[in-house]
Amino acid sequence: VSYEIEFTDRIRVELVASLASDDSVVAAARVSTKGIGSLDELSQGRAEGTGLINYLMKHRHGTPFEHNYFTFFVHAPIFVFREWHRHRVGWSFNEESGRYKQLEPLFYIPGPSRNLVQHGKPGDYSFEPGTEEQFERMVQRKAASCAVAYSAYLDDLEDGIAREVARMHLPVNIYSSMYATCNARSIMSFLSLRQQHPEDEALFPSSPMAEINYAADVIEEAFAAEMPITYDAYVRHQRVSP
Amino acid sequence: VSYEIEFTDRIRVELVASLASDDSVVAAARVSTKGIGSLDELSQGRAEGTGLINYLMKHRHGTPFEHNYFTFFVHAPIFVFREWHRHRVGWSFNEESGRYKQLEPLFYIPGPSRNLVQHGKPGDYSFEPGTEEQFERMVQRKAASCAVAYSAYLDDLEDGIAREVARMHLPVNIYSSMYATCNARSIMSFLSLRQQHPEDEALFPSSPMAEINYAADVIEEAFAAEMPITYDAYVRHQRVSP
Amino acid sequence: VSYEIEFTDRIRVELVASLASDDSVVAAARVSTKGIGSLDELSQGRAEGTGLINYLMKHRHGTPFEHNYFTFFVHAPIFVFREWHRHRVGWSFNEESGRYKQLEPLFYIPGPSRNLVQHGKPGDYSFEPGTEEQFERMVQRKAASCAVAYSAYLDDLEDGIAREVARMHLPVNIYSSMYATCNARSIMSFLSLRQQHPEDEALFPSSPMAEINYAADVIEEAFAAEMPITYDAYVRHQRVSP
Amino acid sequence: VSYEIEFTDRIRVELVASLASDDSVVAAARVSTKGIGSLDELSQGRAEGTGLINYLMKHRHGTPFEHNYFTFFVHAPIFVFREWHRHRVGWSFNEESGRYKQLEPLFYIPGPSRNLVQHGKPGDYSFEPGTEEQFERMVQRKAASCAVAYSAYLDDLEDGIAREVARMHLPVNIYSSMYATCNARSIMSFLSLRQQHPEDEALFPSSPMAEINYAADVIEEAFAAEMPITYDAYVRHQRVSP
Repeated sequence: VSYEIEFTDRIRVELVASLASDDSVVAAARVSTKGIGSLDELSQGRAEGTGLINYLMKHRHGTPFEHNYFTFFVHAPIFVFREWHRHRVGWSFNEESGRYKQLEPLFYIPGPSRNLVQHGKPGDYSFEPGTEEQFERMVQRKAASCAVAYSAYLDDLEDGIAREVARMHLPVNIYSSMYATCNARSIMSFLSLRQQHPEDEALFPSSPMAEINYAADVIEEAFAAEMPITYDAYVRHQRVSP
Repeated sequence: VSYEIEFTDRIRVELVASLASDDSVVAAARVSTKGIGSLDELSQGRAEGTGLINYLMKHRHGTPFEHNYFTFFVHAPIFVFREWHRHRVGWSFNEESGRYKQLEPLFYIPGPSRNLVQHGKPGDYSFEPGTEEQFERMVQRKAASCAVAYSAYLDDLEDGIAREVARMHLPVNIYSSMYATCNARSIMSFLSLRQQHPEDEALFPSSPMAEINYAADVIEEAFAAEMPITYDAYVRHQRVSP
Repeated sequence: VSYEIEFTDRIRVELVASLASDDSVVAAARVSTKGIGSLDELSQGRAEGTGLINYLMKHRHGTPFEHNYFTFFVHAPIFVFREWHRHRVGWSFNEESGRYKQLEPLFYIPGPSRNLVQHGKPGDYSFEPGTEEQFERMVQRKAASCAVAYSAYLDDLEDGIAREVARMHLPVNIYSSMYATCNARSIMSFLSLRQQHPEDEALFPSSPMAEINYAADVIEEAFAAEMPITYDAYVRHQRVSP
Repeated sequence: VSYEIEFTDRIRVELVASLASDDSVVAAARVSTKGIGSLDELSQGRAEGTGLINYLMKHRHGTPFEHNYFTFFVHAPIFVFREWHRHRVGWSFNEESGRYKQLEPLFYIPGPSRNLVQHGKPGDYSFEPGTEEQFERMVQRKAASCAVAYSAYLDDLEDGIAREVARMHLPVNIYSSMYATCNARSIMSFLSLRQQHPEDEALFPSSPMAEINYAADVIEEAFAAEMPITYDAYVRHQRVSP
């Protein structure tokens, strides 16, 4: 067999479907005070929604943010999926299977802008760039290791070993793909844990890995585009997930 | 104060937003075997999806049915909401509040077609129509009781009692309203528990109350309209929630 | 039939089973840095757990607080259960059924210490005591209304009406009972929403109803007794649910 | 640095804490018909519980099985955790972190009794033993690949690369550890999906990987020991998760 092993630091997060609006938040919240009358809110985009949405966000009334829908297609290394799949509430996943499909020879290796060196202790790390030499050596080691692993994978397959056994020694930086479905509330929970912001912007700062932080940044963009008032309120109230 | 107390047996369940398709089921399932290639499924409505969807349903692979979205507006008596809110997974609710809003004098009383008499023991009831006289007496008693309750409610309010205290003695057949958001998987779980079907149609027959069964019937219609192949597979495989 | 209708303001919340310790929090957190070595934490009650638990609470690392268990038996009016059952995550419920069981003539009426009068608007109410006369009138109205309702309920039953229909006009202050199972994380979420504390004690103050606030107070006691270090950290970090 | 790389096919699943009984199922179910009277069930171990538990299982009344608690410590390769963490409902996890801790040179390689060869197509595979020679070649390839990966990992670390970057090319058969907390209902859901049984024993047969099937077998043992009547009912009703 002939194949070309590829290395990349690209992570793809693509919104493939959504139905979301600030109006739906207002309608869901107003049902408590207006009952049936809240249906009027669904089609109006009223300016006064801003105040209500800020009120909900400030006081952490979370349920009105659940009546909407986003599906993302994600193409990323397994170690990113490992963290992502720990989000249980308000998330649905379907992922590529190493049992059902031969995995492609595509591996994640950090690019030169990714911080390489850590300082501090668990729970209080800071990360800084490495030297160019460190970077080059790291790339060489990872590329060589992945090549050995993928070659042994193909040898296993050619030797008649079942896919689910052959793939066992493949590394967590091999790419996988999934559909991930969520709503604005589960998105805000995800962002609050998977994005790094300084203390004045995030009341409860997090220290996520750069790779899932990148994925969160793309999700944030989609969220901000679909629900701009909700997004503004989230940012204004220091990114506390309601 | 002047008001008119109303009695009805109408339950309103209205689909106010949805984004759902059989294609999304196929794409989510095919990502396991096709990875990125599954994106092609999202826009194609291929006939061969039927076989795959039946396969998923038969073997209870449930997650591919979660990548879609339905929001219903529901106007129903509180005793219906009490059962509905016990569904925790894949459901989001926002409901009218007796703390924030004066409740309307609208009460549910069963109509003449609703079975009135039960036989059997817990877990094995059967229901049958009552006599016309039983029905009339039941209606009179309920109407009178509701009128007393609502009148005392208004008296409490006029006497300066807080809404959340005034409403405490209002009956569970007073109407409330809510937005309920779910997906095809949580819909099928709901239908499997809240609809009654004979044993040859439902592998695990349920004995729901008539009122929530009615609500489930409306949801079933919306579900069937949006995802006809999925719905057919659900029915064909004896209404076992995947 | 002869029966005695009863009115009370007693709400019963009783811990019937639990297995919980601060050690389990420490072990679950330390598995991230110690792996198998974390098993040592399970039996040691080490003093240094305090620092780690405070760290987890401050940074809202919630999952280590889930490896424990509490079951409460609750006897309370339906309107309290209505709010309680909106908690979907980390809660399990089984409740008395008006379909399967004749409901007892026991109704909640607020006692003299319960605030009766509200000021302000939705989302910003304050409550104050009423006058003795207001209280007496409210009690009389509620007692009379409940008596009418229960009497009509019994008449329905004697007239052969099915329990599930007969109970439809019973008020939301009739008592029900349930088992409610949760863990320390879902308890803290419950407390943060269902207890009222001044702003210097609660970073996100809530405005719960007095009756569920009382239930939350009992749960807080059980939680504090079983997991004192976790509880102290929760209070110290201004009752923000991790 | 000097280290010894280890290969094993041992998966460790150990019950570290539990509070579970068939009585709690009976009490939770009986609250629907007995209210407060159900508290008597909690301490009695009555023989008649068997009939009720079988009834609940047959009719898929699942909630009474949630009022109990199991925590397992699991030491297994990452590819097992990847499947396990897809269980979102009724499961809590805390896992060893490759960001916070240097990972041990311990890798899973299937033992000689593990089927190596697959036939059929996705969704309908059957697995059979390979030859002794196939097995030996597979072991050699995997051992060599893991050794290269771990050596490059240590080189990265010595070169000052952050742990979270260094570990990116480590394989999914490296060992990790976690605490996993669940209840009898989530256990039955897990078993129904992660154990293979013939069609006459399992109404909805599954095709799990051998490694997670082994973990499920250990969980099944603990479940059967703690809740024997519930377990018998689960088996009798063809392992359909209620």
